[in-house]
Amino acid sequence: MNRIYGASLVLAFALAPLASAHAGGDPAAGQTKAVVCAACHGVDGNSINPIWPKLAGQHEAYLAKQIRAFRDGVRVDPTMAPMVATLTEEDIDDIAAYFASQKPK
Amino acid sequence: MNRIYGASLVLAFALAPLASAHAGGDPAAGQTKAVVCAACHGVDGNSINPIWPKLAGQHEAYLAKQIRAFRDGVRVDPTMAPMVATLTEEDIDDIAAYFASQKPK
Repeated sequence: MNRIYGASLVLAFALAPLASAHAGGDPAAGQTKAVVCAACHGVDGNSINPIWPKLAGQHEAYLAKQIRAFRDGVRVDPTMAPMVATLTEEDIDDIAAYFASQKPK
Repeated sequence: MNRIYGASLVLAFALAPLASAHAGGDPAAGQTKAVVCAACHGVDGNSINPIWPKLAGQHEAYLAKQIRAFRDGVRVDPTMAPMVATLTEEDIDDIAAYFASQKPK
Protein backbone atom coordinates (compact mmCIF):
# COMPACT_ATOMS: atom_id res chain seq x y z
CA MET A 1 0.00 0.00 0.00
CA ASN A 2 1.55 3.31 -0.99
CA ARG A 3 1.30 6.34 1.25
CA ILE A 4 -1.23 8.24 -0.85
CA TYR A 5 -3.56 5.26 -1.09
CA GLY A 6 -3.13 4.67 2.63
CA ALA A 7 -3.97 8.28 3.45
CA SER A 8 -7.02 8.16 1.18
CA LEU A 9 -8.22 5.03 2.93
CA VAL A 10 -7.84 6.69 6.33
CA LEU A 11 -9.71 9.75 5.07
CA ALA A 12 -12.50 7.60 3.66
CA PHE A 13 -12.99 5.87 6.99
CA ALA A 14 -12.89 9.17 8.83
CA LEU A 15 -15.63 10.61 6.64
CA ALA A 16 -17.73 7.44 6.52
CA PRO A 17 -19.75 8.17 9.68
CA LEU A 18 -20.70 11.60 8.37
CA ALA A 19 -21.66 10.24 4.97
CA SER A 20 -23.71 7.34 6.28
CA ALA A 21 -25.35 9.56 8.87
CA HIS A 22 -26.99 11.58 6.09
CA ALA A 23 -30.23 9.81 5.37
CA GLY A 24 -30.99 11.68 2.15
CA GLY A 25 -34.78 11.70 2.27
CA ASP A 26 -37.11 13.59 -0.06
CA PRO A 27 -38.42 16.77 1.64
CA ALA A 28 -41.38 17.13 -0.75
CA ALA A 29 -42.56 13.58 -0.11
CA GLY A 30 -41.90 14.13 3.58
CA GLN A 31 -44.20 17.15 3.71
CA THR A 32 -47.18 14.98 2.81
CA LYS A 33 -46.15 12.22 5.19
CA ALA A 34 -45.60 14.71 8.03
CA VAL A 35 -49.22 15.87 8.17
CA VAL A 36 -49.84 13.73 11.23
CA CYS A 37 -46.88 15.36 13.03
CA ALA A 38 -48.31 18.86 12.67
CA ALA A 39 -50.75 18.65 15.57
CA CYS A 40 -47.90 18.75 18.06
CA HIS A 41 -44.82 19.86 16.12
CA GLY A 42 -46.45 22.47 13.89
CA VAL A 43 -46.90 22.32 10.11
CA ASP A 44 -43.37 23.67 9.61
CA GLY A 45 -41.82 21.90 12.61
CA ASN A 46 -42.04 24.89 14.95
CA SER A 47 -44.03 23.51 17.85
CA ILE A 48 -45.83 26.05 20.00
CA ASN A 49 -46.01 24.10 23.25
CA PRO A 50 -42.58 24.30 24.94
CA ILE A 51 -42.60 20.67 26.04
CA TRP A 52 -42.57 19.50 22.42
CA PRO A 53 -39.34 19.96 20.46
CA LYS A 54 -38.98 22.21 17.47
CA LEU A 55 -38.00 20.03 14.53
CA ALA A 56 -37.51 22.83 12.00
CA GLY A 57 -33.90 23.13 10.91
CA GLN A 58 -32.77 20.21 13.04
CA HIS A 59 -30.17 17.89 11.48
CA GLU A 60 -31.87 15.42 9.14
CA ALA A 61 -29.76 12.50 10.36
CA TYR A 62 -30.60 13.27 14.00
CA LEU A 63 -34.32 13.49 13.27
CA ALA A 64 -34.26 10.19 11.37
CA LYS A 65 -32.30 8.54 14.17
CA GLN A 66 -34.82 9.69 16.80
CA ILE A 67 -37.87 8.60 14.77
CA ARG A 68 -36.28 5.15 14.38
CA ALA A 69 -35.49 5.11 18.12
CA PHE A 70 -39.16 5.81 18.93
CA ARG A 71 -40.32 3.22 16.41
CA ASP A 72 -37.94 0.56 17.69
CA GLY A 73 -38.56 1.29 21.37
CA VAL A 74 -35.01 2.50 22.01
CA ARG A 75 -36.42 5.91 22.98
CA VAL A 76 -39.63 5.45 24.91
CA ASP A 77 -42.49 7.91 24.62
CA PRO A 78 -46.17 6.93 24.82
CA THR A 79 -47.24 9.65 22.37
CA MET A 80 -44.53 9.16 19.78
CA ALA A 81 -44.50 5.35 19.70
CA PRO A 82 -47.90 4.88 18.01
CA MET A 83 -47.33 7.86 15.69
CA VAL A 84 -44.25 6.29 14.10
CA ALA A 85 -45.05 2.59 14.49
CA THR A 86 -45.94 1.96 10.86
CA LEU A 87 -43.40 4.22 9.16
CA THR A 88 -41.11 2.62 6.57
CA GLU A 89 -37.41 3.44 6.30
CA GLU A 90 -38.22 5.69 3.35
CA ASP A 91 -41.03 7.45 5.23
CA ILE A 92 -38.67 8.23 8.09
CA ASP A 93 -35.98 9.61 5.80
CA ASP A 94 -38.52 11.74 3.94
CA ILE A 95 -40.12 13.17 7.10
CA ALA A 96 -36.70 13.92 8.57
CA ALA A 97 -35.67 15.65 5.33
CA TYR A 98 -38.83 17.76 5.36
CA PHE A 99 -38.44 19.10 8.90
CA ALA A 100 -34.69 19.60 8.46
CA SER A 101 -35.46 21.80 5.44
CA GLN A 102 -37.79 24.09 7.39
CA LYS A 103 -36.73 27.33 9.06
CA PRO A 104 -36.63 27.41 12.88
CA LYS A 105 -38.53 30.33 14.41
CA MET B 1 -69.40 29.41 42.44
CA ASN B 2 -70.32 32.32 40.20
CA ARG B 3 -69.75 32.18 36.46
CA ILE B 4 -66.82 34.60 36.35
CA TYR B 5 -64.98 32.78 39.12
CA GLY B 6 -65.72 29.46 37.44
CA ALA B 7 -64.42 30.70 34.12
CA SER B 8 -61.27 32.05 35.76
CA LEU B 9 -60.66 28.73 37.41
CA VAL B 10 -60.98 26.90 34.11
CA LEU B 11 -58.60 29.37 32.49
CA ALA B 12 -56.08 28.96 35.31
CA PHE B 13 -56.08 25.20 34.87
CA ALA B 14 -55.83 25.53 31.10
CA LEU B 15 -52.72 27.72 31.39
CA ALA B 16 -51.10 25.78 34.24
CA PRO B 17 -49.26 23.25 32.05
CA LEU B 18 -47.69 26.02 29.97
CA ALA B 19 -46.65 27.99 33.04
CA SER B 20 -45.16 25.03 34.88
CA ALA B 21 -43.42 23.83 31.74
CA HIS B 22 -41.28 26.97 31.69
CA ALA B 23 -38.24 26.16 33.77
CA GLY B 24 -37.00 29.75 34.01
CA GLY B 25 -33.26 29.17 34.19
CA ASP B 26 -30.53 31.82 34.03
CA PRO B 27 -28.95 31.90 30.55
CA ALA B 28 -25.80 33.72 31.74
CA ALA B 29 -25.14 31.16 34.46
CA GLY B 30 -25.97 28.44 31.97
CA GLN B 31 -23.33 29.61 29.51
CA THR B 32 -20.58 28.82 32.03
CA LYS B 33 -22.13 25.51 33.00
CA ALA B 34 -22.56 24.52 29.34
CA VAL B 35 -18.85 24.54 28.55
CA VAL B 36 -18.71 20.76 28.76
CA CYS B 37 -21.56 20.48 26.22
CA ALA B 38 -19.67 22.44 23.57
CA ALA B 39 -17.49 19.59 22.36
CA CYS B 40 -20.47 17.90 20.74
CA HIS B 41 -23.23 20.52 20.63
CA GLY B 42 -21.11 23.55 19.74
CA VAL B 43 -20.44 26.59 21.92
CA ASP B 44 -23.71 28.17 20.80
CA GLY B 45 -25.67 24.92 20.56
CA ASN B 46 -25.25 24.51 16.81
CA SER B 47 -23.68 21.08 16.55
CA ILE B 48 -21.73 20.36 13.40
CA ASN B 49 -22.03 16.58 13.33
CA PRO B 50 -25.51 15.71 12.00
CA ILE B 51 -26.02 12.87 14.45
CA TRP B 52 -25.95 15.32 17.38
CA PRO B 53 -28.96 17.62 17.80
CA LYS B 54 -28.80 21.37 17.49
CA LEU B 55 -29.85 22.82 20.84
CA ALA B 56 -29.78 26.48 19.81
CA GLY B 57 -33.24 28.02 19.87
CA GLN B 58 -34.90 24.85 21.12
CA HIS B 59 -37.65 25.26 23.72
CA GLU B 60 -36.13 25.72 27.17
CA ALA B 61 -38.69 23.44 28.82
CA TYR B 62 -38.01 20.68 26.28
CA LEU B 63 -34.25 20.92 26.76
CA ALA B 64 -34.60 20.79 30.55
CA LYS B 65 -36.95 17.83 30.29
CA GLN B 66 -34.50 15.89 28.11
CA ILE B 67 -31.48 16.62 30.32
CA ARG B 68 -33.47 15.34 33.31
CA ALA B 69 -34.52 12.29 31.29
CA PHE B 70 -30.87 11.50 30.51
CA ARG B 71 -29.85 12.09 34.13
CA ASP B 72 -32.65 9.93 35.50
CA GLY B 73 -32.20 7.13 32.95
CA VAL B 74 -35.60 7.70 31.36
CA ARG B 75 -33.86 8.50 28.07
CA VAL B 76 -30.86 6.23 27.64
CA ASP B 77 -27.69 7.39 25.93
CA PRO B 78 -24.20 6.22 26.90
CA THR B 79 -22.61 9.57 26.01
CA MET B 80 -25.18 11.85 27.64
CA ALA B 81 -25.69 9.91 30.88
CA PRO B 82 -22.27 10.66 32.43
CA MET B 83 -22.27 14.25 31.13
CA VAL B 84 -25.41 15.15 33.08
CA ALA B 85 -25.12 12.76 36.03
CA THR B 86 -24.06 15.38 38.57
CA LEU B 87 -26.18 18.32 37.40
CA THR B 88 -28.46 19.95 39.96
CA GLU B 89 -32.00 21.09 39.17
CA GLU B 90 -30.71 24.66 38.90
CA ASP B 91 -27.82 23.63 36.62
CA ILE B 92 -30.27 21.95 34.26
CA ASP B 93 -32.59 24.95 34.14
CA ASP B 94 -29.66 27.30 33.51
CA ILE B 95 -28.12 25.19 30.75
CA ALA B 96 -31.51 24.79 29.09
CA ALA B 97 -32.08 28.56 29.29
CA TYR B 98 -28.68 29.24 27.72
CA PHE B 99 -29.13 27.02 24.68
CA ALA B 100 -32.74 28.13 24.23
CA SER B 101 -31.49 31.73 24.06
CA GLN B 102 -29.03 30.98 21.24
CA LYS B 103 -29.78 31.41 17.54
CA PRO B 104 -30.13 28.27 15.44
CA LYS B 105 -27.98 28.26 12.29
